[in-house]
Amino acid sequence: MAEFMTETEQRCPAVPHHGTAGERRGRTTGTGAGRLDGQADGQEAAVLLERTRAVVDPELRAALESLPAPMRRIALYHFGWQHADGTSANGRTGKAIRPALVLAAAAALGGPAARTAAVRAAVAVELVHNFTLLHDDVMDRDTSRRHRPTAWTVFGDADAILAGDALQALALRLLAEDPHPAARPAAARLADCVVELCAGQHTDTDMERRGPDEVTLDEVLAMAEAKTGALLGCACALGALYAGAGPDDVAALDGFGRQAGLAFQLIDDVIGIWGDPRHTGKPAGADLAARKKSLPVVAALSSGTEAAAELAELYGKPYVAGDVEGIALTARAVERAGGRDWAQAEAADRMARAVQELSRAVPVPEAAGGLLALAEFVTRRSS
Amino acid sequence: MAEFMTETEQRCPAVPHHGTAGERRGRTTGTGAGRLDGQADGQEAAVLLERTRAVVDPELRAALESLPAPMRRIALYHFGWQHADGTSANGRTGKAIRPALVLAAAAALGGPAARTAAVRAAVAVELVHNFTLLHDDVMDRDTSRRHRPTAWTVFGDADAILAGDALQALALRLLAEDPHPAARPAAARLADCVVELCAGQHTDTDMERRGPDEVTLDEVLAMAEAKTGALLGCACALGALYAGAGPDDVAALDGFGRQAGLAFQLIDDVIGIWGDPRHTGKPAGADLAARKKSLPVVAALSSGTEAAAELAELYGKPYVAGDVEGIALTARAVERAGGRDWAQAEAADRMARAVQELSRAVPVPEAAGGLLALAEFVTRRSS
Repeated sequence: MAEFMTETEQRCPAVPHHGTAGERRGRTTGTGAGRLDGQADGQEAAVLLERTRAVVDPELRAALESLPAPMRRIALYHFGWQHADGTSANGRTGKAIRPALVLAAAAALGGPAARTAAVRAAVAVELVHNFTLLHDDVMDRDTSRRHRPTAWTVFGDADAILAGDALQALALRLLAEDPHPAARPAAARLADCVVELCAGQHTDTDMERRGPDEVTLDEVLAMAEAKTGALLGCACALGALYAGAGPDDVAALDGFGRQAGLAFQLIDDVIGIWGDPRHTGKPAGADLAARKKSLPVVAALSSGTEAAAELAELYGKPYVAGDVEGIALTARAVERAGGRDWAQAEAADRMARAVQELSRAVPVPEAAGGLLALAEFVTRRSS
Repeated sequence: MAEFMTETEQRCPAVPHHGTAGERRGRTTGTGAGRLDGQADGQEAAVLLERTRAVVDPELRAALESLPAPMRRIALYHFGWQHADGTSANGRTGKAIRPALVLAAAAALGGPAARTAAVRAAVAVELVHNFTLLHDDVMDRDTSRRHRPTAWTVFGDADAILAGDALQALALRLLAEDPHPAARPAAARLADCVVELCAGQHTDTDMERRGPDEVTLDEVLAMAEAKTGALLGCACALGALYAGAGPDDVAALDGFGRQAGLAFQLIDDVIGIWGDPRHTGKPAGADLAARKKSLPVVAALSSGTEAAAELAELYGKPYVAGDVEGIALTARAVERAGGRDWAQAEAADRMARAVQELSRAVPVPEAAGGLLALAEFVTRRSS
């Protein structure tokens, strides 16, 4: 699953103005239209993320330290607290956006006390996220994560799988040990989310095996929602549960996180094609070279245009290493077929839906501010 | 992890008389000395297992049916309810010994009401067991399980890993959704057990990479306890929790299951060397051909005898396919070095310890009967 902002941060302007998109669809509410205009959100999000790490990291670290030695070593490496040789590292690899969403949702619906109560849930969500990263990297044979070699390349497949299994168990143990009345529904919801994440990853690996004309846009959107949206939604829902929110508000917070997650994925896919390699750390058009059925590509293929037919032909042939011209040609075909415009408009629309969902549960703009700043942050690509 | 009685059932007499072993160590209590003498236990265990399946299977099946389609298909195949092509099968692949232990422990400490209350926990334990089987088969590249091709050989590594992940989540979701007051400590204990199972599997794969002289008997025993004993102990402990037992009784039940699990593993390892291939479904001495560092082998290697040196030399060379004479020679070396005798005596000792642990919590023989019958069943090799 994609990692927020660790490789793609601050690299190219890609998100259209959310307020505008929302207005276009007639969905904008009073909640946060004004909030999404400026760059102040970036600073607010940075402060929130920093505050989150300050309370979550010690609990997270303590949970990892409770693992038996071999599992602990792999986990500490994966989280960036140790180098491959077991020596200390600074652990500043992830941005902790999911725990930040848990805490921001708790604060939005229940104030500072709920935020404090939800720290364990925030740690649990971060553990689940990282369990899926460990396993996905094994399945996808990804060799790099957060600018470091993936755990399986260092410790082997078996240990990476086992460390992932242990992190899932740790996450659900934390909630089982939490006496807060929200802990039980939170655990059920988080476990349910894991099942959805698994189904999403299955669809992703399955789609990569199929031909480009055998995948529909609805399927890719559903996959992105399961793989990326589900855990962001779950993070927000858990925060709401710890604030004592009722089922409607919990569902609204889940919807907010899901839609923001989809917006993120759309923008991430745009960057996977048109991102600047100096910032992405990957060669230009890496997703196209891998013939990845990303959202802009499938949208382009489904457009019924002449460019779609060209793109289908290009995608039907394997990438020849070093074919920079072929990649440029492919990127232009996606753009001419409307894939880029669609993805950007869809991202804006998803953000508008996110804002609308949030306003159902949190009508006061001041209370919604933190969540909006985080949503803006994960889809923002300029600074 | 080893599967009770599905491949090794009813094949050769291997367990010494537990009562005798207990008396030898002066540990036998009044609890069940008489119970372990006869063959009646086999029938009692068979009845218990049948009754367990009758209440556990519908809940287990319902839990699996709740999975998204692709995960469901892999899970139903793994559990034997579907063939690889998705058509129905009878599902009679496992013996459900772990859920039977949960229910028997609940009944022993809390009577029929506790047994009924513990069904969900029994399902959760079976789900965890099967999640570890799915993952272990991927890691160990095992191609056969319960006389059928393993899930990864049918669906690929990624789907087998994902299905395992989903089963772990399902197990902990069941407990999170269970309003019984024991559900929360049971979930914490089960999650803790998963971490121990992961550490055990890590040690197992790690030891297989090391030389035969680099592994100590204590290490192999600790590994067997983590890999096999821990979940049997956890099953019994969960039953005790659902019976409302206090910490001492829960710990005693955990100890009972752990010791019985170790006894099982010792006997299973004996059969891996001297078992009749007509019953085991594997070629004679398969574990020796694989140079497996099983308990009798490591005991033999640690014996300081002349035969130990011979065995070390034999184990130092790779197995040449078809070398029946070499395998027979190796088996004789293990036997001459005392590996077989040690394993059988140790199994008897572990059973005696199991009985002693049980008597701490369940002093009344009638109440302990079910658990003793199951423990006898898993280590019994004649009928």
